[in-house]
Amino acid sequence: MNKPKKVQESITIFGAGLVGSLLSIFLARKGYSVKIYERRADPRKQKMQGNRSINLALSKRGWRALQEVDIADLVKPIAVPMKGRMMHDTKGNLTFQSYGTENQAIYSVSRAELNKIMITEADRLPNTKFYFEHDCKAVNLWDFSYQIEHQNQVFSENSDIILGADGAFSAVRNAIQRTDRFNYSQFYLEHGYKELTMPPKTDGAFKMSPDALHIWPRRKFMLIALPNPDHTFTVTLFLPFEGEISFESLQTKKAVKTFFETYFADAVELLGNPVEQFFANPTGSMVTVRCSPWTFQNRVGLVGDAAHAIVPFYGQGMNAGFEDCRVLNDILTEYNGDWTEIMPKYQRSRTENANAISELALTNFIEMRDKVADEKFLLRKKIEAHLHQLFPEKWIPLYSMVTFSHIPYAEALQKGKRQEQIMNQVLAMSNIEQTWKTLDFQEIVNRL
Amino acid sequence: MNKPKKVQESITIFGAGLVGSLLSIFLARKGYSVKIYERRADPRKQKMQGNRSINLALSKRGWRALQEVDIADLVKPIAVPMKGRMMHDTKGNLTFQSYGTENQAIYSVSRAELNKIMITEADRLPNTKFYFEHDCKAVNLWDFSYQIEHQNQVFSENSDIILGADGAFSAVRNAIQRTDRFNYSQFYLEHGYKELTMPPKTDGAFKMSPDALHIWPRRKFMLIALPNPDHTFTVTLFLPFEGEISFESLQTKKAVKTFFETYFADAVELLGNPVEQFFANPTGSMVTVRCSPWTFQNRVGLVGDAAHAIVPFYGQGMNAGFEDCRVLNDILTEYNGDWTEIMPKYQRSRTENANAISELALTNFIEMRDKVADEKFLLRKKIEAHLHQLFPEKWIPLYSMVTFSHIPYAEALQKGKRQEQIMNQVLAMSNIEQTWKTLDFQEIVNRL
Repeated sequence: MNKPKKVQESITIFGAGLVGSLLSIFLARKGYSVKIYERRADPRKQKMQGNRSINLALSKRGWRALQEVDIADLVKPIAVPMKGRMMHDTKGNLTFQSYGTENQAIYSVSRAELNKIMITEADRLPNTKFYFEHDCKAVNLWDFSYQIEHQNQVFSENSDIILGADGAFSAVRNAIQRTDRFNYSQFYLEHGYKELTMPPKTDGAFKMSPDALHIWPRRKFMLIALPNPDHTFTVTLFLPFEGEISFESLQTKKAVKTFFETYFADAVELLGNPVEQFFANPTGSMVTVRCSPWTFQNRVGLVGDAAHAIVPFYGQGMNAGFEDCRVLNDILTEYNGDWTEIMPKYQRSRTENANAISELALTNFIEMRDKVADEKFLLRKKIEAHLHQLFPEKWIPLYSMVTFSHIPYAEALQKGKRQEQIMNQVLAMSNIEQTWKTLDFQEIVNRL
Repeated sequence: MNKPKKVQESITIFGAGLVGSLLSIFLARKGYSVKIYERRADPRKQKMQGNRSINLALSKRGWRALQEVDIADLVKPIAVPMKGRMMHDTKGNLTFQSYGTENQAIYSVSRAELNKIMITEADRLPNTKFYFEHDCKAVNLWDFSYQIEHQNQVFSENSDIILGADGAFSAVRNAIQRTDRFNYSQFYLEHGYKELTMPPKTDGAFKMSPDALHIWPRRKFMLIALPNPDHTFTVTLFLPFEGEISFESLQTKKAVKTFFETYFADAVELLGNPVEQFFANPTGSMVTVRCSPWTFQNRVGLVGDAAHAIVPFYGQGMNAGFEDCRVLNDILTEYNGDWTEIMPKYQRSRTENANAISELALTNFIEMRDKVADEKFLLRKKIEAHLHQLFPEKWIPLYSMVTFSHIPYAEALQKGKRQEQIMNQVLAMSNIEQTWKTLDFQEIVNRL
């Protein structure tokens, strides 16, 4: 008993990044005419930027969205599976922790390469039209028009539906922010980041095990490394902007050299020239953006980072944005193109999940830089993995719910908190290090 | 041992509201040349707007700032003292609660009248220059210039020092918001407000006791009334936007009539035509804005609502803004005009206090609409007043610290929380209603 299909609205998407280009494919496949405006140049025409583009980790939610638009197979060749964390202690000792079961992995991909594939595929569709180097100067919510600057000319257009996939500093959101009763926050971490590159061995091979995300957890700061298909690693230093050991305090080559040698001795050797790279590369900041509502008069909507920019520590920023697109597509199908139903439903179904992954990403930073080096934490992971093995449906570790399932983020967060309470009780038992194998695991699961 | 006085910088203030005009007086008296740009027309040239302008409550912090620029005496004639709260229950019974001691009061003033006095006084000074109907379109932080629109012409100016006193939707803050690592939030209450007017009696006298702030606390909503010098009362309804009893649900004259008759029977009689006014007057929203930093490169700063818009329930919005100006003036004196010292010191000294009064204003809404009608709350107030009488220096009720002292807001909030803990213990004692006069008050104060 579907309602008769409405005349299809014209759609404008701002942003041809990962989320914008994926969204354009979903919408074009539904038959909409989609214009996509992007401030930057066409990445397909750019020279290879080496390994300077930040890495991303594709996990189950992201793959599902790519599968639904039939481009997952095109992405697989550029995705490097990472099956767990490889921790490096200050002496260079390594400890491996699986992320999940034997067959589960997250996949390191280059943002630039992935974006090129997605734009190429979107651009093949007859009803998409990409406009690069077109900068959105303003969105006028009273008549749903917008001003675009291209080659120093400003022109005005309008559209029935406007979708902002234009990232953490979204121009579309900026317009909605001026309307009454729009709640908004942007909050920066006190840590910044700097990317470095670890070249391959002279024979072209990876310098470290490529099937892991490498972490050098040092409590207040950390180094991580993700493998690339060209056998380099993209290495990222996360460090406070200010304080005793900080970007501010590391002003001289000598100070940076001492810093690396003290905390990351094994990485110094592998990186070759960390001090030169440290001074050559820029320092980035990390923001968390939350807002509501995500929609305006059922004709304007926000997707991905524009609605919910998060910090990178759960590897879910892109996956959450892809899930937005996939869910929006499902709702489009369910309501047969009726945007007065689609927009409210989209917002209701996504806001609390975005808030949940935002919180998880913030707390996971502490886990990555601090707790992963902790004996109790490793024991906790071991017991949880065992529980999951015994009761695969009932006890799913939080990391697995977020990374290897489609359980809504908000539900995962809630279940994770309950599991954490129970694990705190278990770990408070005396001699738990010795006795954990003799626990009554059925009873523990029953506490859920 | 003052440093030699620097050459004085040119200063631009955006906003000629209460805070902007006060700030211009402080700065002009220090010898600076001050330009003040205001989007709206000169209020001195406006016709009297009747009582539609929102009332404000001047308290000790506000008076102090006015005294320091010698205009307190000009404001006194338009200020109506309110010595306490007059609670109206649903049957029209009245209960009076003093705000402080016999000689303490807060003062109801009209925003428009106060603003006119302040602009007039600022405009008398030779080194101030006001520009009304001049709209700040943009502030360019890279060269400290700004674009002003006046009579459809846009022109560009610049200034050594730029101060944003341009309110909750500050253009100056909007420029800083685009810089890296600027933390910002805007959060709207789920309640809106609507102003009504209570005329005088036919003989011109006040219809209710004018030396109180009248409250009709109804838990999820409330009505309040503040006296005006012309013997009217400005009455404000605070009500949720959505829900069972809300602006959304009150759509018909019949529904509004029933609503007023059910909850505010005595006020209906006094207001005369609340239903007509309800539909004639607009509904407003209330926002809390927090941000940091408040300054940019020691040349741009935010003052008042531009830095810390708060909800009106502690009557401290204007007082906090005036205190910003007074403290900034003290710091100017202390650092002898050296802005590289002044800006950081100003920000350090004000941010936590702004956050504190922001929190206090939010929690006081619950106190006003809900707790003031509660027996235990009245007993708590009675015991606290007694403690204050016995130990006037040691136990100062939170309301008095905020309203009748210059204790920094953050310190008041902290002390208030400690006092609340102690009072919770006291009120949990059995039979406290009967026995409170026999308490060992010295022992209670010693717990602080």
